[in-house]
Amino acid sequence: VAGLVVLAASALAQSDPLPSWNDTAPKKAIVAFVERVTTQNTADFVPESERIAVFDNDGTLWVEQPMYTQLAFALDRVKLMARQHPEWKDQQPFKAALDGDMKALAAAGQKGLAELIMTTHAGMTVEQFQKIVTNWLATARDPRFKRPYTDLVYQPMLELLAYLRANGFKTFIVSGGGVEFLRPWTEQVYGVPPEQVIGSSIKTKFSMRDGVPILLRLPDVNFVDDKAGKPVGINEAIGRRPIAAFGNSDGDLQMLEWTTLGASGPRFGMLVHHTDAEREYAYDRQTEFGRLDQALEIAPDNGWTVVDMKADWKTIFPWE
Amino acid sequence: VAGLVVLAASALAQSDPLPSWNDTAPKKAIVAFVERVTTQNTADFVPESERIAVFDNDGTLWVEQPMYTQLAFALDRVKLMARQHPEWKDQQPFKAALDGDMKALAAAGQKGLAELIMTTHAGMTVEQFQKIVTNWLATARDPRFKRPYTDLVYQPMLELLAYLRANGFKTFIVSGGGVEFLRPWTEQVYGVPPEQVIGSSIKTKFSMRDGVPILLRLPDVNFVDDKAGKPVGINEAIGRRPIAAFGNSDGDLQMLEWTTLGASGPRFGMLVHHTDAEREYAYDRQTEFGRLDQALEIAPDNGWTVVDMKADWKTIFPWE
Ligand SMILES: [Ca+2]
Ligand SMILES: [Ca+2]
Repeated sequence: VAGLVVLAASALAQSDPLPSWNDTAPKKAIVAFVERVTTQNTADFVPESERIAVFDNDGTLWVEQPMYTQLAFALDRVKLMARQHPEWKDQQPFKAALDGDMKALAAAGQKGLAELIMTTHAGMTVEQFQKIVTNWLATARDPRFKRPYTDLVYQPMLELLAYLRANGFKTFIVSGGGVEFLRPWTEQVYGVPPEQVIGSSIKTKFSMRDGVPILLRLPDVNFVDDKAGKPVGINEAIGRRPIAAFGNSDGDLQMLEWTTLGASGPRFGMLVHHTDAEREYAYDRQTEFGRLDQALEIAPDNGWTVVDMKADWKTIFPWE
Repeated sequence: VAGLVVLAASALAQSDPLPSWNDTAPKKAIVAFVERVTTQNTADFVPESERIAVFDNDGTLWVEQPMYTQLAFALDRVKLMARQHPEWKDQQPFKAALDGDMKALAAAGQKGLAELIMTTHAGMTVEQFQKIVTNWLATARDPRFKRPYTDLVYQPMLELLAYLRANGFKTFIVSGGGVEFLRPWTEQVYGVPPEQVIGSSIKTKFSMRDGVPILLRLPDVNFVDDKAGKPVGINEAIGRRPIAAFGNSDGDLQMLEWTTLGASGPRFGMLVHHTDAEREYAYDRQTEFGRLDQALEIAPDNGWTVVDMKADWKTIFPWE
């Protein structure tokens, strides 16, 4: 009998597509939504081709504290490139980056940050940059968890991505981060192929160099995929309106509005609220990275589900 | 016995995935390439996720004479909008458009053409524009064949798209035309969903209007997906290099270079050469729309397949 109980429990566990979620309201809302749009011969049924789900990345799929991973990458690149740039020792924002002086870096503002990003992200071909990112991710470690950054993804969100795909959804990433910083690893880590990743970008230029075609990355902003840029990026890349959107900050507000408001049929909007300082981080209105304020305020009125990480997630990371 | 022969012939016909292609060199090259990249445990095997094929649209998938279909759409829009713009009767380039004076229109140049496109394509939401395109296509007729424009697609290319997809390829359209002019109908006509259509675009702006989110189309060029813009657009939207590219004009030259040159593994490049004035049109170096000159010149050196429509295509249109 004990054997039978174990077997039954195991079968039950296997039949739960979201085992890392507690049986609280967010999980119930997700499952109810998916069942609603996939039940044939009902008014709310949505054909597979229209089952588009969009996910923010930083703070929604992986950790964004103590700073955006792409910023950690840029700072490491500055240190590496400094060998060829002795003048950076006395020149902001590079000095701040080299000293790890986050206060001076913040003082350099958007302009300083843009200069850092352009210097470290441009001037090579797209394929060279892809290799640089891949190599960095293979060796860099997060300061708190001492693990590769690609380990710091949320197990409940991995399950959610897989659950939606198993139900005929096409899953897209819509990130404020650089699209070419994400594409080298999103397929392996999230199951999201490069062509389903939307993000910020710098301009590229095509030319033939000694009979070989290259795309050179230029130090010019092409597109900023954040805030009101997210619906624009979604429309440009996908050309249809998503029916589900998942984010964690005010940068996702317009993406959630575009997905859930004023369109016919069932819609789903969700915000991940970081409430677990012990297992991950706790922050919302007072943070440099991933501020969540206005979106949290209007979530109830818009029917958006808010995930309380501490209460709603049984597990945070895949390796726990 | 006669019955058996009919059955065998029918089975044979069914087993040919490209029945509208004559058994000439292009068909053989296509089939050889597909078999090469799909045969497992060989050096040339390409995993499904990397089987990306890109197709130009005007002149490659559908007719582009006597003018680009999108230009015919713009001219019809000018006529419709002229009711609210009595001043256009004496104002270029609108006067030329209203009079159907193609010579005066050509004289207005790129600037005049851009003005026509902006006036007719901007100032509404993306959803309103989608409806305008759909309604126009439902009623407009091609001047020569007296058929809906979406009937003027090439049957051999429809078979090629389906053949590639049946072999695990993901098929994309990469057009110099406007992406939002294409997306309303490419899924139905070509089996290519909106998120696999890349094209030129104008800027859009997100805002909330009376609690409803809208994306407004602005009279500003966002991206020109032509010539050296095609590899840029491909990289931006797909993020990996295609292994097969299909075009018909010098506007596709860089896309074919990017796809076929300087990268490892099997690659396929093809140009459709319009050689059949009787069944369709015959043009290459001397045409306003779809000029094919330099790309035709360098095709042999680059190993690109050139389709001679008259000799290589058994059928041109699906309704023949
Ligand atoms: Ca975020
Ligand atoms: Ca063309």
